[in-house]
Amino acid sequence: MKIISGGVIAPKGFLASGTHVGLKKIKKDLSLILSQVPATTAALFTTNQIKAAPVLWSKDVLEKNQEIRAIITNSGNANACTGEQGFVDVKNTSEKLAHELGILQNEILICSTGVIGVPMPMEKLIAGIPEVVKNLGHSETHGIAASEAIMTTDTYSKSIAIEIEINDKIITIGGIAKGSGMIHPNMATMLAFITTDAKLSPEVLKSALFESAEGSYHMISVDGDTSTNDSVMIMANGMSGLPLIEPNTNEYKLFVEGLNFANKNLAQQIVKDGEGATKFIEVNIKNAINITAARKLAKSIISSNLVKTAIFGQDANWGRVVCAMGYSGTEFNPENVDLSFASKVGEVLLYKAGVPVPFDEQVALEILTEKEIIINIDMNIGDSSATAWGCDLSFEYVRINGQYRT
Amino acid sequence: MKIISGGVIAPKGFLASGTHVGLKKIKKDLSLILSQVPATTAALFTTNQIKAAPVLWSKDVLEKNQEIRAIITNSGNANACTGEQGFVDVKNTSEKLAHELGILQNEILICSTGVIGVPMPMEKLIAGIPEVVKNLGHSETHGIAASEAIMTTDTYSKSIAIEIEINDKIITIGGIAKGSGMIHPNMATMLAFITTDAKLSPEVLKSALFESAEGSYHMISVDGDTSTNDSVMIMANGMSGLPLIEPNTNEYKLFVEGLNFANKNLAQQIVKDGEGATKFIEVNIKNAINITAARKLAKSIISSNLVKTAIFGQDANWGRVVCAMGYSGTEFNPENVDLSFASKVGEVLLYKAGVPVPFDEQVALEILTEKEIIINIDMNIGDSSATAWGCDLSFEYVRINGQYRT
Repeated sequence: MKIISGGVIAPKGFLASGTHVGLKKIKKDLSLILSQVPATTAALFTTNQIKAAPVLWSKDVLEKNQEIRAIITNSGNANACTGEQGFVDVKNTSEKLAHELGILQNEILICSTGVIGVPMPMEKLIAGIPEVVKNLGHSETHGIAASEAIMTTDTYSKSIAIEIEINDKIITIGGIAKGSGMIHPNMATMLAFITTDAKLSPEVLKSALFESAEGSYHMISVDGDTSTNDSVMIMANGMSGLPLIEPNTNEYKLFVEGLNFANKNLAQQIVKDGEGATKFIEVNIKNAINITAARKLAKSIISSNLVKTAIFGQDANWGRVVCAMGYSGTEFNPENVDLSFASKVGEVLLYKAGVPVPFDEQVALEILTEKEIIINIDMNIGDSSATAWGCDLSFEYVRINGQYRT
Repeated sequence: MKIISGGVIAPKGFLASGTHVGLKKIKKDLSLILSQVPATTAALFTTNQIKAAPVLWSKDVLEKNQEIRAIITNSGNANACTGEQGFVDVKNTSEKLAHELGILQNEILICSTGVIGVPMPMEKLIAGIPEVVKNLGHSETHGIAASEAIMTTDTYSKSIAIEIEINDKIITIGGIAKGSGMIHPNMATMLAFITTDAKLSPEVLKSALFESAEGSYHMISVDGDTSTNDSVMIMANGMSGLPLIEPNTNEYKLFVEGLNFANKNLAQQIVKDGEGATKFIEVNIKNAINITAARKLAKSIISSNLVKTAIFGQDANWGRVVCAMGYSGTEFNPENVDLSFASKVGEVLLYKAGVPVPFDEQVALEILTEKEIIINIDMNIGDSSATAWGCDLSFEYVRINGQYRT
């Protein structure tokens, strides 16, 4: 596996662009990803019952047709809670884009991110579509432009691309993502778009994506709110020349390894750039009774406000970690549990076999002063592991999310 | 129903005291409530799988014996995650108190609140027991002392007492509570102790308490973490002279109304004094399809960090409210939903029948500048209602919970 540049345009046969059409004041706000040939596509959408109009559009398209050509995303307006007009706007967007690209409306997926409950400024959006189409290209610059145009309060754009060798052929996986953020402060929205030139059937691609999301996007927490617009999409256009990847083969295993790497990498970039984040937190659960328990424990800890504020305050407050394990919904015997805090400068054991371990506060402080903090927990009961990633809860989080919209 | 003074000592036959034994630096840290006669007692304990030693003691006692004489509570140390020694300490506490009061060990419930994972300073605690017994009394001062001695970072003590007339007899319900706080910053702990001179069977008292907690303590949120020490206890000693209250009677209805009033009042006092709270938030769901849906919706909104920070920032960000409704786990059609923000100076409609309503930002800001904010939601689908209470998420919350323990 080799990390390369380019993001979504790295795999063969993908073009991208990003442009400014006026939904945001100055920054890029319209992003387009195009596959030269129909690409087998799978997606994961928010579990929030209130789904933005573009989410409903994209779900509906994928139920009928898994061969997609384009994903268009605007930032600056979520097109959520916008009533009937929201659906009309989405339809008009796809009509215009289909016309400009010479493709069908049901080959287009649509995403939006930004302020909720405000009608989409359709004149600007429609006027911008010919430009975002004209700007399409497959250089590194184009990949970056596409990743920049989906940003809201992200402080940097997020992309990844890797090459994997399978049976002497190179296949490539690329991706861009955006994290929790808001224009006018609003709900967090997570988007990720993955492209690959591997070839998979819709069912196999879907199960690979679902499996990979379980260990990546589903294992991160910024603030625990689930947005109306969250979407993860993968397009596989088969242009690498590698034959169809069948499930339960070595080829599939290698592909999923690569996909996991890309998704974990993007997921980690999202939390590192979490709103107001000053620290990156990794929670490792090992030797749990099964994978479900391991993931529940890791997610419960990474989602706790009290753990997040303790890490912000550089406080070795392991009691809050044990407390979050206790309400995770997983049964375990605390007498089996060992717990330590670590960072690149060292590790300090705090709790062993259910009993607090006396520790040097100065050593703990030195460890917690670092930017990347690791919480290691050994359940000593089975052989399942899980890792979750998150960020701390800082004054800046409150400031960003509390500031008046106007 | 009449509000009176006295807290837990208001009902006939209850004594209380609070004293300083040295678990905290200066403030009172040992609280005792005593019934002159055995009182039928019911309790609700934390659902956290990690339970502090005193919680396990009290659960165990109540499984065998529901006729209780005393509740002893220390603040300053949670006696949680303290291994075998924690249980030995609890047993020694009950032994000493039983001896001093001349009662049985299985007539004593024990609670602790404070720092986790630190052995209880037993020498100080044991030495203080004769003093807290000696200080027992039934004046208002004694009730206040007992409520003060359970405080951690609470900024004021919390108590309530009411009289209800049932069949020409006066029965009294009193209560004290403490909210989320920490000595060394630690996990939130909610405790509430209710006393009454009404007479009820253990089963009926238990079901009255459970029913009442559903609409009070279970409808508040400060930060979403469930502690290892949360406990709500009610003692009913029957000394009012009113005969046994049977279920499904008018007497039971009146008693539960009074109990609900007391519990809601204490629950509201807890969130008003939530860590770093600058605003009190009330969420009213009306005309929901059933009570479960109404409560889920209200709780999901009151628990959202994004709603809490918006209220802190005085931002009429109704989109976050709709978003939290969407992930509440309850199905509903947004096209039925009306939503407004209110306070004592007025109300502003923001969302009607699933469509945003244009509103005057200046009017919204005037409403949100107030200390007590109400979010009113009409589901327009059934006739069930629920109310939840909470506080905002402020810089101060992060400061309190992030500061270094030493």
